[in-house]
Amino acid sequence: MVRLEFEPASQSGWRAECHRIIFGHTRRDERIFDLILIALILASVLVAMLDSVAEVDREWGDWLRAAEWTATIAFTGEYFLRLAVVRHPWRYARSFFGVIDLLAVLPTYLSLFLFGAQHLIVIRVLRILRVFRILKLSQYVGESSELLAALYQSRRKVLLFVISVISLATIFGAIMFLVEGPENGFTSIPRGIYWAIVTMATVGFGDIAPHTVLGQAITSLIIIIGYGIIAVPTGIFTASMMRGQDRSIILPCPRCGLPEHAADARFCHRCGERLGKSD
Amino acid sequence: MVRLEFEPASQSGWRAECHRIIFGHTRRDERIFDLILIALILASVLVAMLDSVAEVDREWGDWLRAAEWTATIAFTGEYFLRLAVVRHPWRYARSFFGVIDLLAVLPTYLSLFLFGAQHLIVIRVLRILRVFRILKLSQYVGESSELLAALYQSRRKVLLFVISVISLATIFGAIMFLVEGPENGFTSIPRGIYWAIVTMATVGFGDIAPHTVLGQAITSLIIIIGYGIIAVPTGIFTASMMRGQDRSIILPCPRCGLPEHAADARFCHRCGERLGKSD
Amino acid sequence: MVRLEFEPASQSGWRAECHRIIFGHTRRDERIFDLILIALILASVLVAMLDSVAEVDREWGDWLRAAEWTATIAFTGEYFLRLAVVRHPWRYARSFFGVIDLLAVLPTYLSLFLFGAQHLIVIRVLRILRVFRILKLSQYVGESSELLAALYQSRRKVLLFVISVISLATIFGAIMFLVEGPENGFTSIPRGIYWAIVTMATVGFGDIAPHTVLGQAITSLIIIIGYGIIAVPTGIFTASMMRGQDRSIILPCPRCGLPEHAADARFCHRCGERLGKSD
Amino acid sequence: MVRLEFEPASQSGWRAECHRIIFGHTRRDERIFDLILIALILASVLVAMLDSVAEVDREWGDWLRAAEWTATIAFTGEYFLRLAVVRHPWRYARSFFGVIDLLAVLPTYLSLFLFGAQHLIVIRVLRILRVFRILKLSQYVGESSELLAALYQSRRKVLLFVISVISLATIFGAIMFLVEGPENGFTSIPRGIYWAIVTMATVGFGDIAPHTVLGQAITSLIIIIGYGIIAVPTGIFTASMMRGQDRSIILPCPRCGLPEHAADARFCHRCGERLGKSD
Repeated sequence: MVRLEFEPASQSGWRAECHRIIFGHTRRDERIFDLILIALILASVLVAMLDSVAEVDREWGDWLRAAEWTATIAFTGEYFLRLAVVRHPWRYARSFFGVIDLLAVLPTYLSLFLFGAQHLIVIRVLRILRVFRILKLSQYVGESSELLAALYQSRRKVLLFVISVISLATIFGAIMFLVEGPENGFTSIPRGIYWAIVTMATVGFGDIAPHTVLGQAITSLIIIIGYGIIAVPTGIFTASMMRGQDRSIILPCPRCGLPEHAADARFCHRCGERLGKSD
Repeated sequence: MVRLEFEPASQSGWRAECHRIIFGHTRRDERIFDLILIALILASVLVAMLDSVAEVDREWGDWLRAAEWTATIAFTGEYFLRLAVVRHPWRYARSFFGVIDLLAVLPTYLSLFLFGAQHLIVIRVLRILRVFRILKLSQYVGESSELLAALYQSRRKVLLFVISVISLATIFGAIMFLVEGPENGFTSIPRGIYWAIVTMATVGFGDIAPHTVLGQAITSLIIIIGYGIIAVPTGIFTASMMRGQDRSIILPCPRCGLPEHAADARFCHRCGERLGKSD
Repeated sequence: MVRLEFEPASQSGWRAECHRIIFGHTRRDERIFDLILIALILASVLVAMLDSVAEVDREWGDWLRAAEWTATIAFTGEYFLRLAVVRHPWRYARSFFGVIDLLAVLPTYLSLFLFGAQHLIVIRVLRILRVFRILKLSQYVGESSELLAALYQSRRKVLLFVISVISLATIFGAIMFLVEGPENGFTSIPRGIYWAIVTMATVGFGDIAPHTVLGQAITSLIIIIGYGIIAVPTGIFTASMMRGQDRSIILPCPRCGLPEHAADARFCHRCGERLGKSD
Repeated sequence: MVRLEFEPASQSGWRAECHRIIFGHTRRDERIFDLILIALILASVLVAMLDSVAEVDREWGDWLRAAEWTATIAFTGEYFLRLAVVRHPWRYARSFFGVIDLLAVLPTYLSLFLFGAQHLIVIRVLRILRVFRILKLSQYVGESSELLAALYQSRRKVLLFVISVISLATIFGAIMFLVEGPENGFTSIPRGIYWAIVTMATVGFGDIAPHTVLGQAITSLIIIIGYGIIAVPTGIFTASMMRGQDRSIILPCPRCGLPEHAADARFCHRCGERLGKSD
């Protein structure tokens, strides 16, 4: 569970103790630290949200800004503490959670130079992913990795699919730009492409909509094509999920090492070796 | 079928008779009671709907209010009657249908103190779920439990999915708030989150829509991500349904060892051996 | 292929000849009749569509009306001819295509008494279903029956699903009517229900949309629930399709008669009898 | 990989060399040619997009037109070069990529006579499909053919589905035209059909929306029917994908007779017998 980049810098002393509290999730004080951290993250995301509402900002702006800076300084301290107590600080800084931790504090500092940047602190919500480490960790991570494995297996099909959608959207966007023209909201080909994506994905905002009879006929055609298209990712993902569960028996063949076999297999279907199951 | 909390308070006398009529669904008088109850529920829901239409309310308001109170008093009486004839009234009151029965009468009484509460009596529509007890009960409940089992099996994946959607919506909502700004309808981050959920789920009301070129490019990206996202619950649920129906019985054949068999199998379909289930 | 209600009234004479031309689909003159019929149907549907466009109606109204009456009289003649040449006219009149044939001519006659009825002649498009009889009939009907079998198998789950959707829509519609109120377009509970169905199905016209913060929060919740709901019919139908193809071997057990078996079954899984496949 | 229509015209000389560079994808100079071509295609599509934006066109119009003509002349030269170096130029011209190559240059020439035609050069985006030949060709083409095989297998079901959707849309479109009428945006039956397709596919632009109570009730019905309809292509495609991946090889084991095996199986997974495939 504790991966290489999270190894403690020393086995005893305050750094070992801090490391245990920060990276552990089992003892009482470790769990209290986790809960305080999560509460602080959620609170600071809430502050960022409230700050973006004009009426609330006018009334409570100074308080919200103070809370934001307090949270940011706390998170900055926590970030450096994490770097201080792990054995390979640089590895930690480049790990997924290391990057997220940095991105979670940067926006507030950026807001000193760049107006608006402080709204990006909602990126802190990604830190909540840590919560899975605490609540029945192993189970959740197992489910998550099943979903990710299904997605990873179908990555090539998904890429093909995305390229096909964008190609179709480009062509239909150009056709609609020609047919409907700027007077009906299709002011340029990029805008037509935006409209085609919105339509094929069955979102259909309606901010741009065809007005000519020919445009509506083409739209009907696009939608019927889109019908088929929306079936593709679902089919890919479902088939991938099924494949994952279908060949559920992870039982390496003793001769050739093929890892997965059908549930009712007694012989490796690649090399014919008898599998070591008790029949 | 008659669960513990619905057991009669006594085996004879008027309470036993009332219990039979209220909770039974087989004899003629029991079925007539059920049908009257369903008709009354549907009628009172219709009254609540009509009452909410301003023109109808102006014309027929007094009659509708009278009908509402009549139904409410009848349902209140029925509720107390149910409590009176079951052996464990308190258990009944906490059961699913006990709570629904109470919620179905409360709004009318609340409307005496709180304007608008009477519109909540449409919650009575949930009482219609009782109808399944009557019409070919066992079959319907079987189908229902198959669906619920599929949902229950995938509860962790669904929770992961919902948290992922909300996290993505929060981040995209904040980005769009920065990119589009209040002048294009994205007046705050919460509003941006609302828009991101509406867009990723392919609902696309169009009450808020991106106007800048950058905003439309990001929207196209969100939609293509949303494409993948909408495939996830379908894939999870379909795989869960399939797993449920496919070969749910993991029951190794005593002779040849084939591990999985069809749910209705009594003999191994590979070697013909009788399976060790109690028929 | 020729079902009982379509049997010829006599084996020879003009009625037998007419019957062969009308109901047959193999010889040259039978196919020519079919093609003329389909062309006439498509033309009359086109006329009905054009007639509904105000500008076209103003210009060509009389011609269109004349074409409509010509087609209607031709179809009426054909209808009575069909009745005349089948052995059981009354059975034919009640069959699926018999009813469609009648519905296809009625609107024009109704339009003499009832303004607007003539637009319903687009129901003639259903007659096109006959086309499947001609073009590689057996294959198409096979595919169609596979789809229908999948739908039929899941009819109870679909009914449960529809009742659940309507119940949820009723409750959410009432809540949104209370939260948003008539000033934001939710003028009545029925209108709220309409909006909830439009939203849960991810259609999202945007003619009614929440304006209050609480309303938008509830909408986000409805949409996330709707996400799960849209997965249900897909899951049901896909599982049903898979079940259909999975147990693809229709091979009745010689002892107990169980019709379907797993693709790799050699023994009936109900009674253990050896199946008559050549291993 | 090099199919018949792409065979070189001669085995040596400049034409063989050119053929190698144009149609090969393995050596250094062949890959450089491919990358230049792809860059040129993407650049020319970008130019076409920018040209469609009125403000950009006003400012940079002449430069964009010059870039367009440069690209077009380069592509025309490449097209004739391809024709010159293949053995069967006419076969190449009729092949998929041959037609695309021609369509990719025609619009610019057409724009001399027909205003607006130049916007169609985005069709060049289809030429990018060549990219799959370069980047890990065999894998991608394998995935692609798996998707296409799934689509091809279900072509009849898809045709049935499309005809059903159009028939339903025609009937619902006519009904809504009668119920809502021109005063609510349903100005003609074709427009009603357009609206019905937009609604059943859950796009829901909202440019036309029902205003009467009856219209909204019918819309709710259409949407619930559409719910089921959107499940159909997904179910068809998923089942087709599953069938394809699952146990596609119907190859009875010579010893035990197990009929279906995994696509990569060389030995029967039940009895270990070598399967009669040529490895």
